Amino acid sequence: MTSKSYTIQEIANHLSAEVRGESSYIVSSLSTLTSAKPDQLSFVANSRYRQHLGTTNAGAVIIALEDESYYSGNAIVCEDPYLAYAKVSRMFERSVIDSPGISDNAAVDDSAVVSSSACIGSGVRLAAACVVGDNVVIGANCVIGADCRIGNGTIIHPNVTLYHDVMIGNDCIVHGGAVIGADGFGFAKNGAKWDKISQLGGVRIGDNVEIGACTTIDRGALDDTVIEDGVILDNQIQIAHNVNIGRNTAIAACTAVAGSTKIGAQCTIAGACGITGHITIAEGTHVTAMSIVTKSITEAGVYSSGTGMQPNKQWKKNVVRFRQLDDLARRIKSIEDKITDIKGS
Amino acid sequence: MTSKSYTIQEIANHLSAEVRGESSYIVSSLSTLTSAKPDQLSFVANSRYRQHLGTTNAGAVIIALEDESYYSGNAIVCEDPYLAYAKVSRMFERSVIDSPGISDNAAVDDSAVVSSSACIGSGVRLAAACVVGDNVVIGANCVIGADCRIGNGTIIHPNVTLYHDVMIGNDCIVHGGAVIGADGFGFAKNGAKWDKISQLGGVRIGDNVEIGACTTIDRGALDDTVIEDGVILDNQIQIAHNVNIGRNTAIAACTAVAGSTKIGAQCTIAGACGITGHITIAEGTHVTAMSIVTKSITEAGVYSSGTGMQPNKQWKKNVVRFRQLDDLARRIKSIEDKITDIKGS
Amino acid sequence: MTSKSYTIQEIANHLSAEVRGESSYIVSSLSTLTSAKPDQLSFVANSRYRQHLGTTNAGAVIIALEDESYYSGNAIVCEDPYLAYAKVSRMFERSVIDSPGISDNAAVDDSAVVSSSACIGSGVRLAAACVVGDNVVIGANCVIGADCRIGNGTIIHPNVTLYHDVMIGNDCIVHGGAVIGADGFGFAKNGAKWDKISQLGGVRIGDNVEIGACTTIDRGALDDTVIEDGVILDNQIQIAHNVNIGRNTAIAACTAVAGSTKIGAQCTIAGACGITGHITIAEGTHVTAMSIVTKSITEAGVYSSGTGMQPNKQWKKNVVRFRQLDDLARRIKSIEDKITDIKGS
Repeated sequence: MTSKSYTIQEIANHLSAEVRGESSYIVSSLSTLTSAKPDQLSFVANSRYRQHLGTTNAGAVIIALEDESYYSGNAIVCEDPYLAYAKVSRMFERSVIDSPGISDNAAVDDSAVVSSSACIGSGVRLAAACVVGDNVVIGANCVIGADCRIGNGTIIHPNVTLYHDVMIGNDCIVHGGAVIGADGFGFAKNGAKWDKISQLGGVRIGDNVEIGACTTIDRGALDDTVIEDGVILDNQIQIAHNVNIGRNTAIAACTAVAGSTKIGAQCTIAGACGITGHITIAEGTHVTAMSIVTKSITEAGVYSSGTGMQPNKQWKKNVVRFRQLDDLARRIKSIEDKITDIKGS
Repeated sequence: MTSKSYTIQEIANHLSAEVRGESSYIVSSLSTLTSAKPDQLSFVANSRYRQHLGTTNAGAVIIALEDESYYSGNAIVCEDPYLAYAKVSRMFERSVIDSPGISDNAAVDDSAVVSSSACIGSGVRLAAACVVGDNVVIGANCVIGADCRIGNGTIIHPNVTLYHDVMIGNDCIVHGGAVIGADGFGFAKNGAKWDKISQLGGVRIGDNVEIGACTTIDRGALDDTVIEDGVILDNQIQIAHNVNIGRNTAIAACTAVAGSTKIGAQCTIAGACGITGHITIAEGTHVTAMSIVTKSITEAGVYSSGTGMQPNKQWKKNVVRFRQLDDLARRIKSIEDKITDIKGS
Repeated sequence: MTSKSYTIQEIANHLSAEVRGESSYIVSSLSTLTSAKPDQLSFVANSRYRQHLGTTNAGAVIIALEDESYYSGNAIVCEDPYLAYAKVSRMFERSVIDSPGISDNAAVDDSAVVSSSACIGSGVRLAAACVVGDNVVIGANCVIGADCRIGNGTIIHPNVTLYHDVMIGNDCIVHGGAVIGADGFGFAKNGAKWDKISQLGGVRIGDNVEIGACTTIDRGALDDTVIEDGVILDNQIQIAHNVNIGRNTAIAACTAVAGSTKIGAQCTIAGACGITGHITIAEGTHVTAMSIVTKSITEAGVYSSGTGMQPNKQWKKNVVRFRQLDDLARRIKSIEDKITDIKGS
């Protein structure tokens, strides 16, 4: 792997932060405090990790002003070391550009419009009337359907499928195996059989959106499915037709959102949740892992479901009681009545 | 996007329905009552939406006989407007045929038999002895293993993988990223290690089946995994080896069915359910979202599991009590005994 | 399909087992006792199936020493018929080698090093500096990122995506649609927005690992995500960044493991479980289906969560009571106090 090197002054400049120590010191990668070597930069994003500052072999450390006194080596001093770590991590990322221009092995329709700065990988199929912006990277073996638009700076990793009429904004990242624009699950009963409802809407994705590996986002039935700016979706998420996800909402892996549901901005939905269809979730709502959401949430807050984990033996006994819960509650009521009776008598 | 146009008489003829109003009126797409424009056709599938009939700008509306009096504009009058909407939606669907014939970039084995009316997309691999029927569409970059058979009129969207010996019937739709025929999860313990059991069965899929994006259907261990006619599977469903799914059963996204389970015909399984292996589910059973099914269901009905969602603060208190549930139940019993004692004394 | 044939003596030799009956008897496939034909070999792995020995049409049966007396036909007698079945199943598996050598349609970077015994399928992209070992099979349309290493004897099925810096050991199997090395879900809050943390680690996979269809394994943030030798992962599993899975652990379909969690060796995690991030699970732990694990498990054992399934009508009543559970528990306490009062009075 080719690696990049920077002086800590260059890094500090990028962060608009202060250097303390040898500003020309060169680092060539990032590491945690405990495993860092002298040619590596580390960071303290949490006071819990201060304890490792005395023993770290890191060549330099990104550190908060309030932690500065705990460390005597080369330091980049800033307000938010975790955010600084995010910014610096991007300086060390390797380029995903496989081969510039349009690969000889790509099958690009004559009517597609591709920026000269875009990279189209081998085996890519670009169908009719696609528009591919500046500095876009489309990884090997992606298939882009007719009339798609891919905004400037967007990276689509290999083996992604976009059906027709999918609009992706600028500076998005779509990970391998994602499928965007497949048919929503719409059928009408026709006697014992299901009659397919053609899904005539598209998918509109804003700017700065990240979409995880093998995540699926279905096209709308009539109107579009919409993912707003800044949304981040982890792997293996299912977004059904006509869902609308508000700005900067984050959804962790394996969560499923059913059709026509509207999730507000700035929500965080943890992993493996199930969100039912045709509901609305208020801006700023947090849902904990593996929860089911079956009704609209009108007030921001933290919501949960489930029983929590137990050793199987105890759990089995409690599950039996769960099934008797209504009966147990009635017995409690009856006991209360009897006690009132006894006391009254 | 190219669009299609029809007179409302043409649409009514297709539906065997009656026109009321200007039969030569032309519509070029479908929309909901509230967003429809004069060149669009809409529908009232639910009396809830009648309220919008007074203000809709739709050029024509598909309407039930009993709702006819609520609307004075151009109408297509029929018995089941939702089913009519399904049928009409298919008149407006755009063709997925990318380029007719076998793409220059496809790698088709000499022993494969491909109908002259089939469309084989760029980058497709068709292995030995495949048989591809009339009017079949195989999307770009699909890989079809040896000895597969794909029936007439079936559409396979891009980036789908079929392993060897997968049989798909007529008029099916397989969405992007689906994997059909991968090995079932079969291993024998050999000391501390797992010894692989080769999966020697195949997969048999009936006619008119729809399979969602990134859904996986494993091949059988010895016999085949079977999906019967008319089954509809949403995205990211997992069907393990030797499962059998009966006619017209519908399964929503992210549900997992473990090995050798037999789901009857006409069932509806909601999203994100888990169905254990080696059980039987009766015809016509309904399972609600995120439920676990751990035992055979011998009687049709609606089945559920889970705790429902709550604000996290209240939920946390209740979860603590769930873990004490067996103890609480014993205390109730003990109280009842004491009261009998007191009353008897 | 081409089939393979063996005498039962050849099979017994492969198993180091004894033949009883006609050792030159030829079988050409495997089947269950109830559906086997005279040219097929069957097995009794469980005494439950002994009852079918009297009526089976199998040409020969793999049988345990203790069951031998129940069967008078041709038999292969061994200690562990289920393990024997696993070994024999592999003798009957058809080869997945599509076309030997590097396909004309593959796009192999000049700096990639590919063993002459490897098979690289059509449409495969091998990026710079990849190393592909002996007898490796890379299925059609796979994309292998820069600097990946694939050990001897490993089979990668079609449409798999490996990002850069993914190391796979010897004799592994990766199923179709899997994505290995996509970015972990790492972001830092920057006001209302999310700032991406570049994922600079890789993925290291040991020997004899099997990875299911559409399973996703993310690359590490700084260090690598690690899957140790002998691990078996079913379909649609999500392994987040910096997870470590110990030797011979088996995980069933649709389970999600969040970031930095360490699962010990020899665990079995059932399907559709959710395992939270930054925890440790003890060696030899078993987790039942659809359970959530939110805390470290320090002692091996069986763990569970959930309510179990019920008919919807009864379940609905019990769910209402679950939401009142803390209140019910307090009422029980209050009743107990009152009874003490009454008894004391």
